[in-house]
Amino acid sequence: MIQTDICIIGAGPVGLFSVFEAGLLKMRCHVMDALPQVGGQLSEIYPQKPIYDIPGYPEVKAQELVDNLMKQIAPFSPTFTLGERVEGIERQEDKSFIVTTNENTTVHCKVIVIAGGLGCFEPRKPAIERLEDFEGKGVAYMVKDPEHFRDKQVVLAGGGDSALDWAIYLSDIAKSLTLVHRGETFRGAPDSAEKVVHLAQQGRINLVLKSNIVKIDGNGHLKEVHIAGADNEISTLEADHLIPLFGLSPKLGPIANWGLNIDKSAILVDTTDYSTNVEGIYAIGDINTYTGKLKLILCGFHEAALMCQSAFKHVFPDQRLSFKYTTVNGVNAF
Amino acid sequence: MIQTDICIIGAGPVGLFSVFEAGLLKMRCHVMDALPQVGGQLSEIYPQKPIYDIPGYPEVKAQELVDNLMKQIAPFSPTFTLGERVEGIERQEDKSFIVTTNENTTVHCKVIVIAGGLGCFEPRKPAIERLEDFEGKGVAYMVKDPEHFRDKQVVLAGGGDSALDWAIYLSDIAKSLTLVHRGETFRGAPDSAEKVVHLAQQGRINLVLKSNIVKIDGNGHLKEVHIAGADNEISTLEADHLIPLFGLSPKLGPIANWGLNIDKSAILVDTTDYSTNVEGIYAIGDINTYTGKLKLILCGFHEAALMCQSAFKHVFPDQRLSFKYTTVNGVNAF
Ligand SMILES: Cc1cc2nc3c(=O)[nH]c(=O)nc-3n(C[C@H](O)[C@H](O)[C@H](O)COP(=O)(O)OP(=O)(O)OC[C@H]3O[C@@H](n4cnc5c(N)ncnc54)[C@H](O)[C@@H]3O)c2cc1C
Ligand SMILES: Cc1cc2nc3c(=O)[nH]c(=O)nc-3n(C[C@H](O)[C@H](O)[C@H](O)COP(=O)(O)OP(=O)(O)OC[C@H]3O[C@@H](n4cnc5c(N)ncnc54)[C@H](O)[C@@H]3O)c2cc1C
Repeated sequence: MIQTDICIIGAGPVGLFSVFEAGLLKMRCHVMDALPQVGGQLSEIYPQKPIYDIPGYPEVKAQELVDNLMKQIAPFSPTFTLGERVEGIERQEDKSFIVTTNENTTVHCKVIVIAGGLGCFEPRKPAIERLEDFEGKGVAYMVKDPEHFRDKQVVLAGGGDSALDWAIYLSDIAKSLTLVHRGETFRGAPDSAEKVVHLAQQGRINLVLKSNIVKIDGNGHLKEVHIAGADNEISTLEADHLIPLFGLSPKLGPIANWGLNIDKSAILVDTTDYSTNVEGIYAIGDINTYTGKLKLILCGFHEAALMCQSAFKHVFPDQRLSFKYTTVNGVNAF
Repeated sequence: MIQTDICIIGAGPVGLFSVFEAGLLKMRCHVMDALPQVGGQLSEIYPQKPIYDIPGYPEVKAQELVDNLMKQIAPFSPTFTLGERVEGIERQEDKSFIVTTNENTTVHCKVIVIAGGLGCFEPRKPAIERLEDFEGKGVAYMVKDPEHFRDKQVVLAGGGDSALDWAIYLSDIAKSLTLVHRGETFRGAPDSAEKVVHLAQQGRINLVLKSNIVKIDGNGHLKEVHIAGADNEISTLEADHLIPLFGLSPKLGPIANWGLNIDKSAILVDTTDYSTNVEGIYAIGDINTYTGKLKLILCGFHEAALMCQSAFKHVFPDQRLSFKYTTVNGVNAF
């Protein structure tokens, strides 16, 4: 079991910055996210787009902001569990919590900070017969570890950036790589699309356009996928893995079942410290709501700072908190 | 009379960022500060120190943050009145306000945002007989426009960074420049101190150490200063200008008289929009207080964002506000 002071659910910008504010008060953090990478909406939805309203940054690309936040929190050595969805939280007799993921990772902590944004990013699943039966048995909706696919027969489906990027990346690792796309052109970045076409010409990607996967088969584990072409003719392909990449959409999900006061898919908080109705559980960033709430990154940063002052009394009930400026003390002094 | 939508009192980081948030909602701003430069405490007290807790900046020098904020707000063309203290605000029949400074500049606006930090920076005045009699008549406590001193006989007093920096700068402009310092070594940056000593050796600065100005004289305008050396012997110097630079210390000052609810030198606000008890007047940044308040720059940024949503209804009472992300629209779309 992982031991920490604060378990942060959600590795978006607000969850990440909380590690910094907590670190200034000597509280250790473990950060968890259902996505395989940190950055929340910024990394998942718009990594290459510039943001203009981060104070002090006339312009900053979303991914660059995430990278800078990771640098900023590095001195406090946060730990991470990525690619796992937090499913349950359980209060202990001593008021601490145990947090559990869908893969049974457990975290023991004194404070829970929900920085879950719009909720868990859940994959958009294509309508393929028996798809769910093969989840974890050949079917996956994201690439957590590319090595998992080494020397395997891999089929990707989709036409966006993820599908293109992973097709290029995995064509080097997999035994065979097929990309099935219902259209003829791609929605992803033009130079990625060009690269995929180029790799197809070299015979390193098997590109199947104007087609849909309609059926999958196997015996306990995926063995073949059936593809319908433009003419509705069905062809069959051997496959160890199928990765449908049709994007992710956020869902509040398990958070709704934790006994928290919820209003329109957001957690109601007290703005003096962004605490929820359950003692020891805070909610910050896009996931919370209160009168005047704005779903802005900069607002989540403020919420993180005030939250930490309050969390401190759960982590160090016997200590008095003294407020210090980073400028005067430097990060290493904390 | 200057016409604007929002008059912002205080050009610290929080006042400056308000211009950006206001600009996104098409509200024009006029920014006023008693100091001759923007940046508030950051530029006045610790321009060269690094700050570590600005989200997304692992480290940023205070002045660099101010410069970046100025770049960020430039697209919205704010106007400024610097070097004048706001003394009075007067409500008009149509609910607009007229704001007046100590130099009788007036601003007509629909909303007032007080981002006054710890208050007006007031000069620390040395104990010199009749000093006040010559204020504005040769005696000044800050350098608003260096050109004012061209070809004049200038005496500076002090041993910190301001005294050193202005001694170096004005030695090029003034007819003669004397720097009087009570100590033998300087508190300011070592390389500035070295430069001053070097200029003194070249005869371009008249450096008078271990001495104090004890008396000044003139007939309607400053004419001479009397200096007591270590041995208490008095020497007399011709002078058109005396600039004592012993630092500035903030005082709430006139803000206390504007009918606002004040608690321990800070303005009480409602945290849903950071409004004060007077309709149309908001208070953000270090100057306000509420349960959980932290005097952090990042908190002032959040307050500015929420404040602007509320100010909008005073500036455009007939329009509906629609919330947009900068990422999606870009700054020029606003
Ligand atoms: C196109 C677009 C443009 C935008 N432009 C701007 C802009 O210009 N300025 C601005 O300020 N904001 C902008 N935003 C909004 C901004 O992205 C959000 O305010 C910000 O991402 C919120 O950060 P967060 O950390 O609260 O949550 P998120 O970034 O949403 O991160 C939450 C994370 O929590 C994880 N999570 C949720 N539930 C669980 C669970 N049960 N278990 C494990 N993990 C979980 C999710 O997987 C997710 O990664 C924009 C948003 C979009 C979509
Ligand atoms: C040494 C030091 C280190 C710090 N380190 C940090 C740090 O690491 N992180 C952090 O977040 N914060 C830090 N702070 C605090 C930070 O500087 C303040 O939170 C910040 O300056 C507040 O910004 P502001 O815009 O509200 O006010 P200020 O920066 O104080 O600006 C207010 C301005 O209003 C003007 N004003 C006031 N009254 C009037 C009037 N009547 N007429 C005209 N002008 C007026 C003043 O002249 C001033 O320029 C530090 C402060 C100090 C002194």
